[in-house]
Amino acid sequence: MLHFECDYACGAVPAVLQALADTNDAQACGYSEDAFCDEARRIILEKCNAPHAHVHFVVGGTQANLTVIAAALRPYEGVLCAETGHINVHETGAVEATGHKVLGLPQKDGKITAAQVRQAMEAHLSDASFEHIVRPGMVYLSHPTELGTLYTKEELIEMSCVCREYGLPLFIDGARLAYGMAAMPDVDLPFLASICDAFYIGGTKCGLLFGEAIVLTSSALNQHFRYHIKQRGGMLAKGRLLGIQFKAIFEDDLYVKLAAQANAMAQQIKARFVSHGCPLFADTIANQIFVVLSNDVCDKLKEKYRFTAWEKVDDTHTAVRFCTNMTTKPEEVEALLADIDRAMV
Amino acid sequence: MLHFECDYACGAVPAVLQALADTNDAQACGYSEDAFCDEARRIILEKCNAPHAHVHFVVGGTQANLTVIAAALRPYEGVLCAETGHINVHETGAVEATGHKVLGLPQKDGKITAAQVRQAMEAHLSDASFEHIVRPGMVYLSHPTELGTLYTKEELIEMSCVCREYGLPLFIDGARLAYGMAAMPDVDLPFLASICDAFYIGGTKCGLLFGEAIVLTSSALNQHFRYHIKQRGGMLAKGRLLGIQFKAIFEDDLYVKLAAQANAMAQQIKARFVSHGCPLFADTIANQIFVVLSNDVCDKLKEKYRFTAWEKVDDTHTAVRFCTNMTTKPEEVEALLADIDRAMV
Amino acid sequence: MLHFECDYACGAVPAVLQALADTNDAQACGYSEDAFCDEARRIILEKCNAPHAHVHFVVGGTQANLTVIAAALRPYEGVLCAETGHINVHETGAVEATGHKVLGLPQKDGKITAAQVRQAMEAHLSDASFEHIVRPGMVYLSHPTELGTLYTKEELIEMSCVCREYGLPLFIDGARLAYGMAAMPDVDLPFLASICDAFYIGGTKCGLLFGEAIVLTSSALNQHFRYHIKQRGGMLAKGRLLGIQFKAIFEDDLYVKLAAQANAMAQQIKARFVSHGCPLFADTIANQIFVVLSNDVCDKLKEKYRFTAWEKVDDTHTAVRFCTNMTTKPEEVEALLADIDRAMV
Amino acid sequence: MLHFECDYACGAVPAVLQALADTNDAQACGYSEDAFCDEARRIILEKCNAPHAHVHFVVGGTQANLTVIAAALRPYEGVLCAETGHINVHETGAVEATGHKVLGLPQKDGKITAAQVRQAMEAHLSDASFEHIVRPGMVYLSHPTELGTLYTKEELIEMSCVCREYGLPLFIDGARLAYGMAAMPDVDLPFLASICDAFYIGGTKCGLLFGEAIVLTSSALNQHFRYHIKQRGGMLAKGRLLGIQFKAIFEDDLYVKLAAQANAMAQQIKARFVSHGCPLFADTIANQIFVVLSNDVCDKLKEKYRFTAWEKVDDTHTAVRFCTNMTTKPEEVEALLADIDRAMV
Repeated sequence: MLHFECDYACGAVPAVLQALADTNDAQACGYSEDAFCDEARRIILEKCNAPHAHVHFVVGGTQANLTVIAAALRPYEGVLCAETGHINVHETGAVEATGHKVLGLPQKDGKITAAQVRQAMEAHLSDASFEHIVRPGMVYLSHPTELGTLYTKEELIEMSCVCREYGLPLFIDGARLAYGMAAMPDVDLPFLASICDAFYIGGTKCGLLFGEAIVLTSSALNQHFRYHIKQRGGMLAKGRLLGIQFKAIFEDDLYVKLAAQANAMAQQIKARFVSHGCPLFADTIANQIFVVLSNDVCDKLKEKYRFTAWEKVDDTHTAVRFCTNMTTKPEEVEALLADIDRAMV
Repeated sequence: MLHFECDYACGAVPAVLQALADTNDAQACGYSEDAFCDEARRIILEKCNAPHAHVHFVVGGTQANLTVIAAALRPYEGVLCAETGHINVHETGAVEATGHKVLGLPQKDGKITAAQVRQAMEAHLSDASFEHIVRPGMVYLSHPTELGTLYTKEELIEMSCVCREYGLPLFIDGARLAYGMAAMPDVDLPFLASICDAFYIGGTKCGLLFGEAIVLTSSALNQHFRYHIKQRGGMLAKGRLLGIQFKAIFEDDLYVKLAAQANAMAQQIKARFVSHGCPLFADTIANQIFVVLSNDVCDKLKEKYRFTAWEKVDDTHTAVRFCTNMTTKPEEVEALLADIDRAMV
Repeated sequence: MLHFECDYACGAVPAVLQALADTNDAQACGYSEDAFCDEARRIILEKCNAPHAHVHFVVGGTQANLTVIAAALRPYEGVLCAETGHINVHETGAVEATGHKVLGLPQKDGKITAAQVRQAMEAHLSDASFEHIVRPGMVYLSHPTELGTLYTKEELIEMSCVCREYGLPLFIDGARLAYGMAAMPDVDLPFLASICDAFYIGGTKCGLLFGEAIVLTSSALNQHFRYHIKQRGGMLAKGRLLGIQFKAIFEDDLYVKLAAQANAMAQQIKARFVSHGCPLFADTIANQIFVVLSNDVCDKLKEKYRFTAWEKVDDTHTAVRFCTNMTTKPEEVEALLADIDRAMV
Repeated sequence: MLHFECDYACGAVPAVLQALADTNDAQACGYSEDAFCDEARRIILEKCNAPHAHVHFVVGGTQANLTVIAAALRPYEGVLCAETGHINVHETGAVEATGHKVLGLPQKDGKITAAQVRQAMEAHLSDASFEHIVRPGMVYLSHPTELGTLYTKEELIEMSCVCREYGLPLFIDGARLAYGMAAMPDVDLPFLASICDAFYIGGTKCGLLFGEAIVLTSSALNQHFRYHIKQRGGMLAKGRLLGIQFKAIFEDDLYVKLAAQANAMAQQIKARFVSHGCPLFADTIANQIFVVLSNDVCDKLKEKYRFTAWEKVDDTHTAVRFCTNMTTKPEEVEALLADIDRAMV
């Protein structure tokens, strides 16, 4: 059985695993206050070209999201996001469990617009009953989105301007940021650091065993942020493991190079489906392929592959998702391509 | 600088690291639903002699504590524990952040008694204003405790009986359980499974890179428990890493064997302090040494060692803590012993 | 300025005020444990024909909603309701502040259907990622709804059956229940008690100074419910005030009789608007009139009346709401009718 | 049966009830945005000599406490108070339910000192693990305290200075403030407004049917405070009732005059117990009498009086509490005095 259902079928990329092995015997203090983490923070801030920003490491994406959002919002505030946003649909109400409403907005291709944010704020501020309504207090985007799409640089600049106009912190979930950066190089780390109050650089889906690097450019948000991490259960005792891994993945630009390879394999898979006339459910820009398959084809492919049933399209067709990732091997993709051909006969 | 300030100065014990390397390329599904985790769960339940119990893996101790406690309590209930309990003093209010009061009881040697629990329940039930008071809904113990002490089998049986009498789930935090099991073999896994509703087998402080194995013997508590884990941010995407590590540490009884070595080194350190006439702040039973040192001696040792200032005793003396752990090397202890001798001159 | 913008323009109906005056000097114990409350509970249960149910009094509707919902749900559960439901739009995230997601469903005329609830449960249960998604744990309806509409007896029976099939408690917000009972007599208290796990009989909008009577037919939900009330800030010290008022409003069936008068006045207002060709935004069944007016007419009426701007319809028209209530006087309505005529010229 | 067990045995003082009756037919808008509330706010700020402060009305003390505290604290912060503080022992964990730890300090006569607050802050700031510990973020006092004692002006000035030094908002719970002001006139409203960031003027225990007036001198705390009130369930629909009552009780200085009468009656009761040689459990300064009685005497008095069993002193003696309040009648006290004499024989 070959796994294409998510971005974390294997362990870590070799360089990351090697770094963990090489440093295993070194002694260090806990809670990411060690020299490995310091070095990783230095590297990340340098790559962000943001010397005054701050980096915090946590183990996973839900932790990153709930900790940043709960730290940024006042009790009566909620977070604006796409209705399909990960925090709205796939984190078991983790944000609500911290007391805050997720304010879902209609999405197109997984994205929301600056105009929608402006409209939401204006609707709130002009409502006579505004005090009876959750106040939008933050904007959450994913880049790439849950549908694998990307915001353009222009869209993000516009979003950032609206957020600043209304005093809304802008937070970008970069769980798959490597694949996004490889696919759209102008939305890079310095750019993100210049438009966001907070974003995180995904590790779990991008070559690490686990780990996300939260970058806070807002010093207000950074104040006492480590208390929040500890309170929400996100402070790793052997925090060094996060610094070691992020340092390794950023050496020789592995983070983007390996993502580019995964993206290229995703394009191969997409092309093969398209060559058989399968409609795309969403375009493949980074490492995810959303394609509509007949249930027959699905059943055949299921014999040897795991992939995700995304949405029922009609009685005989289903939208499915395949993911490549930094540990996907060319021979696995070749096997899949051949089996796609066979299944389509 | 040598680190004796906590239980996680290094990475993992060799067998655990090797297991991670050996399995790195294998594909598996996520969220601890893979075969590695299944196998680890099977081994743990076998060692617990509790075929009907359930095992869940999370990354760290605060996650384990807050998830179990929030799952077990109703909104108006609180958790009884020693005033020195980890959840009461060193988790930044993680339990309160889930809405529940921690009900601290006076401790002796880090422990509370069945009689205290009975008294707390009786005081609640007999108070005319009981509905205005947080209702005790659970008992939390640490074994070993925060002071390195151990509950005896008899104390735990008595506690368990009182808990059942009052319908209070009993939850034991086993962050350092390996060291406890090595030091007091009759409080073993089958025994714990027979008296607790929930306990966790510590990994982070016991040889793993990270990870805690929560054992739920209560099927009521187990129902939908994975939703709780996800909601609180504790569900590891590459969950296999937890299964792989726990499987490795339980092979050849490494979990207890390596803990016994750490305990033996702790005894060496304790003995050396005692031989110099230093009073113990708490007795060393497992892997922690709590000793009262003059501030002069502290200052000398600080030049080459990290250890924890625990409590100011008087103007010239401080209670400090040294920890050994499964990765501590004999030569590190020998260096410390020699430097203790030198500092005492 | 005459107030038609909400249901609570005045104080209490005369009988209620008189009862408060008559009992003012009597001594009683606090927290609704007094004889006045006991008597009111007895009367309500008798009228509900539900001797085994339980009645709890709180001061306001948001308190009633958040207390019942937080008591009924487990942490990972959310509450299904119409997107326009009061808890979803006009309580500043009070439910989310207790940790729970409000799961809004598309509404028609302010109502949701049993089929939608079934679909939501089936979608959850059949999703492979179900543990990553908030689980529906309760259904919340308003009767009358926020749009002044009513569920039919058949709709409610169907809803109740689906809820029981899936183990979902059914909770009905009866903030305006008196007006609903007057308009649709077969959805009466015994019927509600037979189909709901919890509902509340509104007082604040129905003739009292304040107060809602929560009826719990589920003994599971009733267990320790007073702790919840106290914790959420809903336990009134001079709780007698709630019992005294509810007893007064239920004497001589005032609760329904006075509501019927308010409904009749609402019909007069509706008829007058209709006679001028104004389209209704929602039909007037109980005490609320939702009508679309030109902005010119709005401006004229605003000079002497307060009413609520509900929704912008187009650049020159607005949907507005007028409410009557148990303290509305015939001469106030006559003045309004005359001014409607004048404004329409 | 005569009630001396709490401060709210009856309804309202006559002037308050009359004011409610007089205004019952007047129309007003909801949620305390009406002219009655505006006038009451103006009067209160004038009496506080604090034109730039803000007044918000809520129904009860627990609502006032939880709303102010949850509004003032960041998620990782807790509130310092006496271990006997109302929020710590008699609100069913209402503060914890908003996510915050209550940090109880040892008390003497129900009071804590500025030195204790300083020590708590210094202990936190100097602890190497400070990020793992709840940060003190506010100080909560009651005046009068739960033991009926009062802070002196000097004690409060010292407390305020320490709070400002450490940036801790100071919040005073004035549930029984009228009795305190009558007993110790120099701790008056202008003084409280000058030293606190927030305090509330109790109404429920001080002559009203219900209601507390929160005074916020901190504009930071006041920002968006009405959202907090609504979210926590504290916004009264017919908010006018709060303004009407507070206006009535502040006319002719009734608030203090009537409290002085209640205090005088408390002194009579205290004196009678003392004359029989009964030891005081705490001195009577305002309207509460804490006295140690033999269980025999208790049993005799229980036949005709309700009072509160406060604490078991030994096998044959109990500390009990009697309260007077603004509605206590002289003949009730005379009856009690006579029965005390009889019971002591």
